[in-house]
Amino acid sequence: MNPLTKNLLQQLIKKGTAKNYLALFKHFHEADIAEQLGVLSSEERQLFFKKVNPEMSVDILEELDLDQQLDIISQFKTDIAAKFIEEMEPDDAADLLEELSETNETQAENIINALPEKEKSDIKTLLSYEEDSAGALMTSHYVSIPENLLISEALKDIKQQDIPESETSFYIFIVSKQKKLIGYTTLREIILSPKSNKVSSIRHEHNIYVDHHTDQEDVALLFQKYNMSVIPVVDEKKHILGVITVDDVVDVVVEEASEDIYKLSGTSTNDEKTLTSGSLFKPIIYRIPWLLITILGGLIASYIINNYSTKFTENLFPLALSLSFIPLLMGLGGNVGNQSSAIVVRGIATGSIKPQRALLMIGREIIIGLGIGLFISLFLFIINIKIYHYSIVFSSIVSGSLFINISVATLIGTSLPLLFSKLNIDPAIASAPFISTTLDVIGQLIYFAITLTIIHSFVA
Amino acid sequence: MNPLTKNLLQQLIKKGTAKNYLALFKHFHEADIAEQLGVLSSEERQLFFKKVNPEMSVDILEELDLDQQLDIISQFKTDIAAKFIEEMEPDDAADLLEELSETNETQAENIINALPEKEKSDIKTLLSYEEDSAGALMTSHYVSIPENLLISEALKDIKQQDIPESETSFYIFIVSKQKKLIGYTTLREIILSPKSNKVSSIRHEHNIYVDHHTDQEDVALLFQKYNMSVIPVVDEKKHILGVITVDDVVDVVVEEASEDIYKLSGTSTNDEKTLTSGSLFKPIIYRIPWLLITILGGLIASYIINNYSTKFTENLFPLALSLSFIPLLMGLGGNVGNQSSAIVVRGIATGSIKPQRALLMIGREIIIGLGIGLFISLFLFIINIKIYHYSIVFSSIVSGSLFINISVATLIGTSLPLLFSKLNIDPAIASAPFISTTLDVIGQLIYFAITLTIIHSFVA
Repeated sequence: MNPLTKNLLQQLIKKGTAKNYLALFKHFHEADIAEQLGVLSSEERQLFFKKVNPEMSVDILEELDLDQQLDIISQFKTDIAAKFIEEMEPDDAADLLEELSETNETQAENIINALPEKEKSDIKTLLSYEEDSAGALMTSHYVSIPENLLISEALKDIKQQDIPESETSFYIFIVSKQKKLIGYTTLREIILSPKSNKVSSIRHEHNIYVDHHTDQEDVALLFQKYNMSVIPVVDEKKHILGVITVDDVVDVVVEEASEDIYKLSGTSTNDEKTLTSGSLFKPIIYRIPWLLITILGGLIASYIINNYSTKFTENLFPLALSLSFIPLLMGLGGNVGNQSSAIVVRGIATGSIKPQRALLMIGREIIIGLGIGLFISLFLFIINIKIYHYSIVFSSIVSGSLFINISVATLIGTSLPLLFSKLNIDPAIASAPFISTTLDVIGQLIYFAITLTIIHSFVA
Repeated sequence: MNPLTKNLLQQLIKKGTAKNYLALFKHFHEADIAEQLGVLSSEERQLFFKKVNPEMSVDILEELDLDQQLDIISQFKTDIAAKFIEEMEPDDAADLLEELSETNETQAENIINALPEKEKSDIKTLLSYEEDSAGALMTSHYVSIPENLLISEALKDIKQQDIPESETSFYIFIVSKQKKLIGYTTLREIILSPKSNKVSSIRHEHNIYVDHHTDQEDVALLFQKYNMSVIPVVDEKKHILGVITVDDVVDVVVEEASEDIYKLSGTSTNDEKTLTSGSLFKPIIYRIPWLLITILGGLIASYIINNYSTKFTENLFPLALSLSFIPLLMGLGGNVGNQSSAIVVRGIATGSIKPQRALLMIGREIIIGLGIGLFISLFLFIINIKIYHYSIVFSSIVSGSLFINISVATLIGTSLPLLFSKLNIDPAIASAPFISTTLDVIGQLIYFAITLTIIHSFVA
């Protein structure tokens, strides 16, 4: 089968018959159709969705980017828009309405009010959860049965429910008379067990669940720890509210990792799309703040250097030589510090570094820093003496400062993110620009203090 | 229920009865038991697994770290070790045997030979796939049925298979007479459809599958694109070999993101555990290579500065002042370059930047670089004139160099990872130490060239 091309889709939109559309849906996966639709013009996309009824095209709509979904939904009259929302997965529908209400609150409200009662209340509940919480991540589409049934009755009960088409429905949640979550079973066990057995005989008790307030990062860690594919979300009374599926968690994990990478590199947004496409103005705005910190650091460094050069006497070696090693000292301090902070920030995110064991981690990094510092500064000492034939005094000053610099860099690179994490500040704030700017200034102060002390002791 | 503590587990290992063990398994999830076992001593862990039979403890074994699994398996006699391997999920068992054969090939071979025929051939097949390929990631535990059955017959067929307990078994793969994969259906549809219908009536054709050679990163992107929870793996003839489940993909995604973060910060390993725990020697070794590049860059910078100072004449401003702006120029160039490379490296990894559209991306970043450069250098110009009262000539030299520096930094930070990606080199090699060292040297050359040209034009 040939892959779907942009041209084919444009032809279809221009002059396709209902039959052509049916063939399209039969032959191509909705994600592939959405991918090609995504690169067409806004008008072409709108036309596409006008030509097909919501039941058929909603799967494709769900695969589009949120801003493209918004663009399509907002052009429809309330009743058709509501039809789309009704057909969407509840969590995706809530995301879209959330976005819509930011640009056009009235339209969003009208659409919600045009929904059938059950969908309206589901959506309203989903919209009430905080952003990035388990509640906002979950879908209200799942299967549950009471505990006191026979398996044959359970099967009948399940068949009457609106069973999700996805593997979410593999897990059947079991609730008590008070509607409390008391366990789960699976379609597999329902099929394999004798029909006259009780549901309680195939109930699993080891039930992993999350409160709807739980942060999505913690939800992701739970999925990883327990290798779950579905986790139920409950309220304070342990009533089941919905379920989170692992494919949503993949998105969370990817998003969080991107966020850490951008922050570590000193870019103050987590929105990949803004950085890599669309407006050229926004990426500039997102990238400038940390650069201003770098300017501040650079101006302080300039002040320190000018001050240093007035105190410097050329009795042992020239000023230019002394200053010429600043890039090396700065570069190494910054790089070692950034290595440490990247390791710690990522370790906190994946759960392999526990903030409770911060002191142990800091101790560990200090030893590693001493090791790296010793190796690197000895290496430089030998080069300075053997290759450049610099004096022992000068080479010692440079290598000594480098050793202290690298040790301080690992200490700061490790402790800052751990400290931030303890203070409930995002540890990724300890970004490369922040760490390296701090270390530049500290590193120069160390280097100059050592140099001036030694020079003046020789003068005396 | 109280959480499981380390002490409780130690008590159990010391003097627990069979009944105590049963209670443990009933009350706690295997991941929680494994978590506590993980912090005990190697001897305690070994004792634990000696006291329980493999059928009961294998789920816990699977949750331990690979090196801890290895430690336990390698102490058992061949027949017991083989029992554990037989009970494990085939993909986990293959990973463990792979690891074991690196330290003790004979033992690994003995264990494989002690397995029942089917498991032996399954494991041998899994072991034959390349590392990080779809074949190595998949499990051979899945359900498939022939296409020509009635639904009632299919249900009977399925019940006779060894159905995986996980949601993998929600998807039932449909194969032709020639055993080719021709689609799938779900347990949901089998339950909901009339028993006398044919399987072909509930067969889905939009079948997403991967070849067993496919790289695990590409597999992860497919899962994200199609929101799948299970993807079948096929050979050249489209015979189904196994399935990959989305929870394995979460691990891949986390691992790949960590790898990018470490590489971007200039640490040459992807193994989080090595960096954050265990031997102190290995992390030092992994972190030193890029630092040596930084030393090289620093020495080149030192050479350039010394050379510059011999050519410098103090007719317009002092040498120390000129050199004092090196940290600012270096810092900004490095940071802007690292922002660009982080954005591009991450964008390539998540698929939001297509290497085919490299030129577009480079063009985009150049414009962003010009924007950032213009803003930052004007800002610095005003500060230098208004606050520091530096001369217009000097302030222009600094801001002009800064502008060019930042533009070059975005260009290099964007193009290097894209170039590497085109050459099939890991784009994350364009790490912070590499980018900033390169930019340091280039930045100084630009700054000094501009300064010397202007100074000498005034002298003349």
